Amino acid sequence: MFIRNCWYVAGWSSEVVAQGFLARTIIDMPLALWRREDGAVVAFEDACCHRGAPLSKGRREGDCVRCMYHGLKFDADGQCIEIPGQDHIPPSMKVRTFPVVERSKWIWIWMGDPAKADPSLIADTHWLDDPAWRSLEGYTHYDTNYLPIADNLLDLAHLPYVHASTLGGSEDYATNLPLVEPLERGIRVTRWAMNTMPPAFIQKVRPFAGKVDRWNIYDFTVPGIFLMDSGMGDAGGGVREGDRSNAAMFHSCQALTPETAHATHYFFAQPHSFAIDDAAVTRSIHQSIVEAFEEDRAMITLQVRSLAARPDFRMRGIRADEALTKFRFLVDRLLQVERAGMPAVATVSADGVSA
Amino acid sequence: MFIRNCWYVAGWSSEVVAQGFLARTIIDMPLALWRREDGAVVAFEDACCHRGAPLSKGRREGDCVRCMYHGLKFDADGQCIEIPGQDHIPPSMKVRTFPVVERSKWIWIWMGDPAKADPSLIADTHWLDDPAWRSLEGYTHYDTNYLPIADNLLDLAHLPYVHASTLGGSEDYATNLPLVEPLERGIRVTRWAMNTMPPAFIQKVRPFAGKVDRWNIYDFTVPGIFLMDSGMGDAGGGVREGDRSNAAMFHSCQALTPETAHATHYFFAQPHSFAIDDAAVTRSIHQSIVEAFEEDRAMITLQVRSLAARPDFRMRGIRADEALTKFRFLVDRLLQVERAGMPAVATVSADGVSA
Amino acid sequence: MFIRNCWYVAGWSSEVVAQGFLARTIIDMPLALWRREDGAVVAFEDACCHRGAPLSKGRREGDCVRCMYHGLKFDADGQCIEIPGQDHIPPSMKVRTFPVVERSKWIWIWMGDPAKADPSLIADTHWLDDPAWRSLEGYTHYDTNYLPIADNLLDLAHLPYVHASTLGGSEDYATNLPLVEPLERGIRVTRWAMNTMPPAFIQKVRPFAGKVDRWNIYDFTVPGIFLMDSGMGDAGGGVREGDRSNAAMFHSCQALTPETAHATHYFFAQPHSFAIDDAAVTRSIHQSIVEAFEEDRAMITLQVRSLAARPDFRMRGIRADEALTKFRFLVDRLLQVERAGMPAVATVSADGVSA
Repeated sequence: MFIRNCWYVAGWSSEVVAQGFLARTIIDMPLALWRREDGAVVAFEDACCHRGAPLSKGRREGDCVRCMYHGLKFDADGQCIEIPGQDHIPPSMKVRTFPVVERSKWIWIWMGDPAKADPSLIADTHWLDDPAWRSLEGYTHYDTNYLPIADNLLDLAHLPYVHASTLGGSEDYATNLPLVEPLERGIRVTRWAMNTMPPAFIQKVRPFAGKVDRWNIYDFTVPGIFLMDSGMGDAGGGVREGDRSNAAMFHSCQALTPETAHATHYFFAQPHSFAIDDAAVTRSIHQSIVEAFEEDRAMITLQVRSLAARPDFRMRGIRADEALTKFRFLVDRLLQVERAGMPAVATVSADGVSA
Repeated sequence: MFIRNCWYVAGWSSEVVAQGFLARTIIDMPLALWRREDGAVVAFEDACCHRGAPLSKGRREGDCVRCMYHGLKFDADGQCIEIPGQDHIPPSMKVRTFPVVERSKWIWIWMGDPAKADPSLIADTHWLDDPAWRSLEGYTHYDTNYLPIADNLLDLAHLPYVHASTLGGSEDYATNLPLVEPLERGIRVTRWAMNTMPPAFIQKVRPFAGKVDRWNIYDFTVPGIFLMDSGMGDAGGGVREGDRSNAAMFHSCQALTPETAHATHYFFAQPHSFAIDDAAVTRSIHQSIVEAFEEDRAMITLQVRSLAARPDFRMRGIRADEALTKFRFLVDRLLQVERAGMPAVATVSADGVSA
Repeated sequence: MFIRNCWYVAGWSSEVVAQGFLARTIIDMPLALWRREDGAVVAFEDACCHRGAPLSKGRREGDCVRCMYHGLKFDADGQCIEIPGQDHIPPSMKVRTFPVVERSKWIWIWMGDPAKADPSLIADTHWLDDPAWRSLEGYTHYDTNYLPIADNLLDLAHLPYVHASTLGGSEDYATNLPLVEPLERGIRVTRWAMNTMPPAFIQKVRPFAGKVDRWNIYDFTVPGIFLMDSGMGDAGGGVREGDRSNAAMFHSCQALTPETAHATHYFFAQPHSFAIDDAAVTRSIHQSIVEAFEEDRAMITLQVRSLAARPDFRMRGIRADEALTKFRFLVDRLLQVERAGMPAVATVSADGVSA
């Protein structure tokens, strides 16, 4: 069960090239993504309307696609325009298409009611191609549902435990509970850790001599978009009061896109605004993130496997669960709204409970 | 759900040697196939009647088989004739056997009511061992149900698309709709493509200088036996009028045998009647078929996977589906007949709809 | 469905080292086994009570364990004693622990009602560390339920068929039906084979010039503990009358511990009391057992696969099934007793049928 009326990240722009197709499944729907000759991305369901053969194995013919099983040809709107051996083509011979928007290196797709596909709902991720920031393109894949990954992102207290040698600093970091605030379609989390040890990844590229004041401030919005202002400066140097002049700053862009109920695409980048002309710095930061995300994946995959083996297990909440509990509540609420055919936007009140 | 009262191809004669066993599952029944000392093939269910141990791991003792778990011994009729430590052997200690007929290099097995196992129902495949024809023995395995493979064989319009570099010629081939006629237990398909490009595989062994007139005429009968008279001659050279004196001719013999609902054995050969003493020609033709069948398998496996991911998907028919639609109707009809305990032979009228 | 109120072998002592964890699933429950600083083995459910993360990936801190997902800390009783960012810890924040007893190199665990965990119910396996006996530690894993393995151990008539080149001698061995007697929580089997060929494994280490008199006398008790007095002496040399002065003797200790309904841990050793200072003899005997157990595993895995493919198959009993039939009856009876909440000890009468 997935929220349909929302924008999912379908891929990096670089994954859909001028020729050929990208075959990718999103919320249980196999898709064939391709570019028209004008460069616009088209998303077809990856099944010929005749007998379900994969169109991603088809042949591009200009702005059309030919199924290479029995030769049916479709235009960019999905309408069949040729059936070998047959003159009449019923209008119902059509493959489904999905609204697509390409922006700041990400391709966004709307899996629900096309009439509701409002591009203004797409999150701002300009850090991905802003000349003042640098990052590399990341992708990984989980053999789990997306919600345990969302849980992970919604409680950064895990940093010093799961990521001791990458993103985590000293364990006092975990004792600072964040401020959790509702957004119209998500949660805002504000964490400050004052006078704490800098994490290993920053010491590799921009070392601090002593302790730091560190912030992680992020919006996590449906379906699973994580956009984080983060960084650190010398402890007591005034970053919390707003002086970031000597701070190291990042603006992480991450997107969870469910493939199926048991698999998830994970797109990520870690833009930084210092040393932007030093490619080695950008590579080192990216490599640290990749290592850290493998640490997350190992833990979450084991957690999911453990829970699958224990249908009797009941989780017990702690205070640090506030953000993830509110986000799961919001997801349930939006699913109910969609099931009921109600308007797609719900409001979460300050206590995270109403609609 | 499979038709039981029919002859399935269980294997090539060469697969069941004088000693040992061939373990093979057919329509969900694990079998142990072996030869008596007189050469006759015997088919046992591959499960000792005691506790289900595989008899294909047993020991041949003359025309008997000993289970190598607890030592029970069975004669060629499946009757237990020895139980270690026990004098009395109940007549019910018996493994099930199945009627078998070996003919023209294929071993046929009857999986239904033995009283109905009429060898005259076995299709004529004499091309497999006729001295005027040559072929090699082919086998492949699908991780899919057999019906999508039958669909593929029942619409050869796929040749120029799926097999562009092997069996297919130019794409005009697909625009010629075939004549589809009912048989008592199958479908007859007659396709002619006039003045079309010769396919790549014939050019490797018996090249044509220009275009050809090409025919594919085949019977496809239950459970999945495909026997095809095919060939081509110089365009306008009179092959359609009956003059095959300068034509290249084939008589393909293919058999789909379901292993389970999700797996299929595929036996095939492509006998040719020209250059029969040139082993390189026979090998080249066989290799082309093997390559082409891998092309089919890639497409069909993707199609089946795609459909499995889309329980909501509904196929939309085109005129070229006539033969496959009628064959699926026939299969459903025969399954109903068997379920109802009615006679095993149904009749399909000219419109493919009655019984 | 497993018997819960009984002692299972959880592992060899050597598998749980001073630091770190052994992650092992027993009757569907993932466990984290570890040693306190005083050496005592502790068994935790392998799931943090917070969100199910695996504690076997946690960090040992003295006699405590810290979950390395969000940092919760537990004492050796499973009680949570630290939650980062939270002062109050509800008493319900606790991971489940299981009674453990370590004895003669095996770690035993009680998976049922802790109040009923009576160490006097643990079988005597002193041969594993008795200085008068020698053996190596064996472990293998089955991808099957444990009951078909128990069946195998309860009818040694399979020795000459499955183990012709390892544990089996001549096939007359199978014609000697054993004496089968009920125990309070198991079955006692007494087999004698007089004037039979010695098995291959003994000829490698203590060869007999001619035939032997051979005994296999064992108790098989719930959940799957096999303890066997076995051996052989020169045929007619008086071993059956009690003179073992020139016999080769073994005391096999084997334990089946279900991992899940479809997987089983198998712990084994084959202590011998001759040539105890010749390590090559001990290694040879162990190697023969390992080979033989691979022979069993191949047969049983095929049997289970065969039966899974044949839901319609019905086993047919023979006289040699007496012990395994009675054991399966006992297991069913004990499961009923546990379901009914009745006392955990059932009594099997001489005919193996009452409670």
